[in-house]
Amino acid sequence: MTNPYWSPTIRELAPYVPGEQPRLPDIVKLNTNENPYPPSPQVLAAVRAAADDNLRLYPPPEADELKAAIAAYHGVAADQVFVGNGSDEVLAHAFLGLLDHGRPVWFPDITYSFYPVYCRLYGIPWSEVPLTADYAIDLADYCGDGNGGTGGIVIANPNAPTGRALPRADIAALAAANRDAVVLVDEAYVDFGAESAVPLIADHPNLLVVQTLSKSRALAGLRLGFAIGDAGLIQALDRVKNSFNSYPLDRLAIAGGIAAFADEAWFQAQRQRIIASREALVGALAGLGFEVLPSAANFVFARHPRCGGRELYEGLRRRAVLVRHFEKPRIAQFLRITVGTEAQHQRLLAALGELLS
Amino acid sequence: MTNPYWSPTIRELAPYVPGEQPRLPDIVKLNTNENPYPPSPQVLAAVRAAADDNLRLYPPPEADELKAAIAAYHGVAADQVFVGNGSDEVLAHAFLGLLDHGRPVWFPDITYSFYPVYCRLYGIPWSEVPLTADYAIDLADYCGDGNGGTGGIVIANPNAPTGRALPRADIAALAAANRDAVVLVDEAYVDFGAESAVPLIADHPNLLVVQTLSKSRALAGLRLGFAIGDAGLIQALDRVKNSFNSYPLDRLAIAGGIAAFADEAWFQAQRQRIIASREALVGALAGLGFEVLPSAANFVFARHPRCGGRELYEGLRRRAVLVRHFEKPRIAQFLRITVGTEAQHQRLLAALGELLS
Repeated sequence: MTNPYWSPTIRELAPYVPGEQPRLPDIVKLNTNENPYPPSPQVLAAVRAAADDNLRLYPPPEADELKAAIAAYHGVAADQVFVGNGSDEVLAHAFLGLLDHGRPVWFPDITYSFYPVYCRLYGIPWSEVPLTADYAIDLADYCGDGNGGTGGIVIANPNAPTGRALPRADIAALAAANRDAVVLVDEAYVDFGAESAVPLIADHPNLLVVQTLSKSRALAGLRLGFAIGDAGLIQALDRVKNSFNSYPLDRLAIAGGIAAFADEAWFQAQRQRIIASREALVGALAGLGFEVLPSAANFVFARHPRCGGRELYEGLRRRAVLVRHFEKPRIAQFLRITVGTEAQHQRLLAALGELLS
Repeated sequence: MTNPYWSPTIRELAPYVPGEQPRLPDIVKLNTNENPYPPSPQVLAAVRAAADDNLRLYPPPEADELKAAIAAYHGVAADQVFVGNGSDEVLAHAFLGLLDHGRPVWFPDITYSFYPVYCRLYGIPWSEVPLTADYAIDLADYCGDGNGGTGGIVIANPNAPTGRALPRADIAALAAANRDAVVLVDEAYVDFGAESAVPLIADHPNLLVVQTLSKSRALAGLRLGFAIGDAGLIQALDRVKNSFNSYPLDRLAIAGGIAAFADEAWFQAQRQRIIASREALVGALAGLGFEVLPSAANFVFARHPRCGGRELYEGLRRRAVLVRHFEKPRIAQFLRITVGTEAQHQRLLAALGELLS
């Protein structure tokens, strides 16, 4: 599959493949780490109101009110906030604007698989740093003498698909040990039990924290992500954005995002509920003989000593239970299972019970 | 303003500056070519319904239903359609995926000022082809012997900010004379009186047509744009999109876009109303002594023999009438004025009358 009109760059791409979005009504969908509960009713009310308010007009190009809401929530200045059309877009702009220095960007060998895709898109070299044997990030691998030549470091915290988290102090040490490069911390799952690095940005002008409203705020369908960092880093993202698409967020997403940060009670209740469900799920999976990595996310990464990952994935799929399986070195034995509702867990566990018996 | 962490590329950027989006309530806003009338009520109903339907889930990554609606409307196949977060994003992906061949991309010296911005972002060389003395595109400039080395041709039709249109036959000739390169036709304003090149794509595998729902369908605030072309060209855009942001359109935009193509009566009524208003505006401006370029868009480009463009722009601004002025060679004398409502035109013309008296 190729075409004479394609730019040379894109012939070499290996695009990201998102988890499938099937439209079957009765499926148990635990494959893309969505929130099992709806967003705040205040968000839906704000979106409906915005639909009636000047959809004919362009959005405010800088989404100032949303930036102000995020800044107030996180205790930073508005010029330390960047917003984008999902955290994937924010990450893309960060790779181009802050990590493209002709030197290899470092990230774990097992992490969000979009990172090498961005590198290919922008022609940025990269180097994959192996996780330890128990799938943890060893800080020493990123802080030794050998990494003076890094073009930047990207850490998902908690990491995906492992779910393992680093404490904030480790992120501080990482940023301090790599002052010549940007340390990007992708906190897509942070609200489910990890420590955010946002409080560190005042002391670390090279630290960029990226978050999303897709997971803990249940707004995957609205496409909202943001970055927090030193104003100098944020300006870099703004320059890329304004050379790419001046209005990345539509009026409805801006309104919904502002409302999401206003309803703290809803946010806390849902995330606590998911954390509790995760702990119950971990226990049940252990009861079936699974080894489950310690998770600070809204998913668990688990393997069974007697049954392969692909086999389980396919068996679950036949029973209308969707989870994620990665046919990749070191993790082919694992399943990544999104934390769902109690009812979804019952169907998952029943299906696993059948498959393992 | 710079920062040691910025990638070398972005230090050289000169980002696009969109027209301002002021929040003054009583302003006559004729500066960003928005539709003066609201979108179809069916669009608003569809958006409100989508807000209640699984906003917690990611959107379908390929927005298949929206592509199918656009394909059916334009009489093409679904694999000949690409959708993006506004036509600016579609254009950005096209520059990277189809125009980045290390040879200069050609576009007029006076056209949408985002084109050179994309070139800078992706490091694509470009060459500006002067419009004629009366601000028209001379086809011969793009079809002669000297352009064998072009990396691609970008034509806005109607052109912005001039408003002048080329007939479809000229686009066909352009595509036929440049078979080795992509000819991108940006039809942001085509519904206000120009001939679309979409019927040509079957015969021209190098022709990519880009349109938007921001103008004629009054959805600037929803961020929807699309491209139509040979499936080989569309695949290039898909490859870029899936290496950048797998879910560029949120669920509300997808739902609104589908509804917009379903309400043909609303679309036709509003665009005919704007065309009629434009002709009335042209007449009134001529009555005040303006020279107005022939416009097939929802704006007019006009200059006054006795009064400078900046002077008029500033005088109008003091009277709470916003139009667009470009401080650029060849067009500094002009104002670009969006076609508005009758009431807005009355305020514009009264203010101009004062300024010219």
